[in-house]
Amino acid sequence: MKNLNLPKKVFIKEVGPRDGFQIEKKFVPTENKIEVIDMLSACGFADIQYTAFVHPKAIPNMADAAEVSAKIKRPAGVEFTALIPNQKGYERACGLGLKRVELTMSATDSHNLSNLNCTSLESIARLEECLKLGLETQLCAGLAVVFGCPFEGRPPYERIRMLVDRIVGLGIKDLGLADTSGVGDPKQVYDICARLVDAYPSVTFYVHVHNTHGAAVANILAAMQAGITHFDSSVAGLGGCPYAPGASGNVATEDIVQIFEYMGIETGIDIDRLIAAAKRVEEIVGHSDSATLKAGKMGHLVEGGPICQNNRQ
Amino acid sequence: MKNLNLPKKVFIKEVGPRDGFQIEKKFVPTENKIEVIDMLSACGFADIQYTAFVHPKAIPNMADAAEVSAKIKRPAGVEFTALIPNQKGYERACGLGLKRVELTMSATDSHNLSNLNCTSLESIARLEECLKLGLETQLCAGLAVVFGCPFEGRPPYERIRMLVDRIVGLGIKDLGLADTSGVGDPKQVYDICARLVDAYPSVTFYVHVHNTHGAAVANILAAMQAGITHFDSSVAGLGGCPYAPGASGNVATEDIVQIFEYMGIETGIDIDRLIAAAKRVEEIVGHSDSATLKAGKMGHLVEGGPICQNNRQ
Repeated sequence: MKNLNLPKKVFIKEVGPRDGFQIEKKFVPTENKIEVIDMLSACGFADIQYTAFVHPKAIPNMADAAEVSAKIKRPAGVEFTALIPNQKGYERACGLGLKRVELTMSATDSHNLSNLNCTSLESIARLEECLKLGLETQLCAGLAVVFGCPFEGRPPYERIRMLVDRIVGLGIKDLGLADTSGVGDPKQVYDICARLVDAYPSVTFYVHVHNTHGAAVANILAAMQAGITHFDSSVAGLGGCPYAPGASGNVATEDIVQIFEYMGIETGIDIDRLIAAAKRVEEIVGHSDSATLKAGKMGHLVEGGPICQNNRQ
Repeated sequence: MKNLNLPKKVFIKEVGPRDGFQIEKKFVPTENKIEVIDMLSACGFADIQYTAFVHPKAIPNMADAAEVSAKIKRPAGVEFTALIPNQKGYERACGLGLKRVELTMSATDSHNLSNLNCTSLESIARLEECLKLGLETQLCAGLAVVFGCPFEGRPPYERIRMLVDRIVGLGIKDLGLADTSGVGDPKQVYDICARLVDAYPSVTFYVHVHNTHGAAVANILAAMQAGITHFDSSVAGLGGCPYAPGASGNVATEDIVQIFEYMGIETGIDIDRLIAAAKRVEEIVGHSDSATLKAGKMGHLVEGGPICQNNRQ
């Protein structure tokens, strides 16, 4: 092979305000959520997953979804989307005029049961119920633990294929594939994505990776080579799993934007505004998981910096 | 493309005892160095770069190179190699009976001058002087800042090619290509490695990456696809640059061993012994930069673990 067959342009959905804030143990004040979302909507994202319409007992940090929806700025060109678990969440999102929502489910029954108290196929039935309502809000789907489940390990491809087939059979055109706890490897990500892209050329697959084992960027690279051009990521690397010691957050948006731009892959994101948003997020939640926030812009080291002792190699 | 064209087997040179310990501000006690090297030599590495023969004023932590050399265990099948900057280091290493050493230099003059007080071509002249001695110890070369220099940015390929050509012209068969401050990107790493592998089919190129911007594993994946099968890495992710804020260490050996094994790429390394060594290193130096030390073995999350809130996705 003479090149990596990389795309010229990728589409990044910023999911930090949802996947990140949802797992913070302390409630993130509504005004801070709005402030961060407004900073993000000035960065050039076409899609910001800004909240989830879920039961506040399940995810207390999303209890202010309606107030956030009412108060965020809505600049032209930015679509504000949300995550939903079921028909109730769908109806709430529709009532607030959302153009698109993502119904989430898991690739394994044990994981689906632990999160949604039903099997994967029962979640697909919920998706079908939502579709039958004939509402205006477009429905997408997100499949968690595609690349590894905390309870069942790695689901067989046939299982993933069966679920994708049912979902696509309902007319869904946008489908997320999530490495929810960050246990995928690049070969596996490539193999699964390449087969799905081949099988469903009219579907847009979003790859959503966490960096638990340090393979997030490599998994994205492998997904790109399999034909994936749509990715989820979180500002400041928010997300992760507070109950799995050491489990990491989503790959940091500012990290992949920097790497992509150096690779000549267009993102449309203003990196300086994004880094400012990441710093603000870090101030608000008190932590981050971002190489960029630790090391600065890649240019900082590339274009000038102090002598490194280990430059001896 | 239908697959990533990955190798079945890779060769990992453990460089932590050299690249890691050399930049510790506090002197790492000699007995601790020996303890760690002995733990590493039981992991299955064929090559451990265990010290450097450099002026103790330049790198105080390598001042005990002779004592370490005398006291480490030397199990069959493990080669103990070292870094040298010049003829004096070469003669010291030869005097201690080393089978192989790596003479380091930089891809840019400004970097070479800052580290070795001579230009890149003057370092190549030093390499030639060493070769002329006709000693038994095999000479390899290592080229720093190939993928980005703190002073000059990214060297043009023609510059890299010219230096490699001179080095290979002297009969060198093993040549390291280092992303010394961790500023490379996967496309760049692929492009440079693919061209060099094509141009010098009889040379073994080692790729040496740091994880400053989170791209280390992706850069290794890209290098593999370019035909590279030899990599340097550091136990516990030691290394890095104490004077470049946030700059990260070498990619952690235990991280890449885990990821490679999940990819079906053989490393020959005993991951449990390696993780034990990494934990000991962390105790000794008081820090680490290792996803494995944070998150545990990949199986820990894949095969069983607590419910993650963010498994909603």
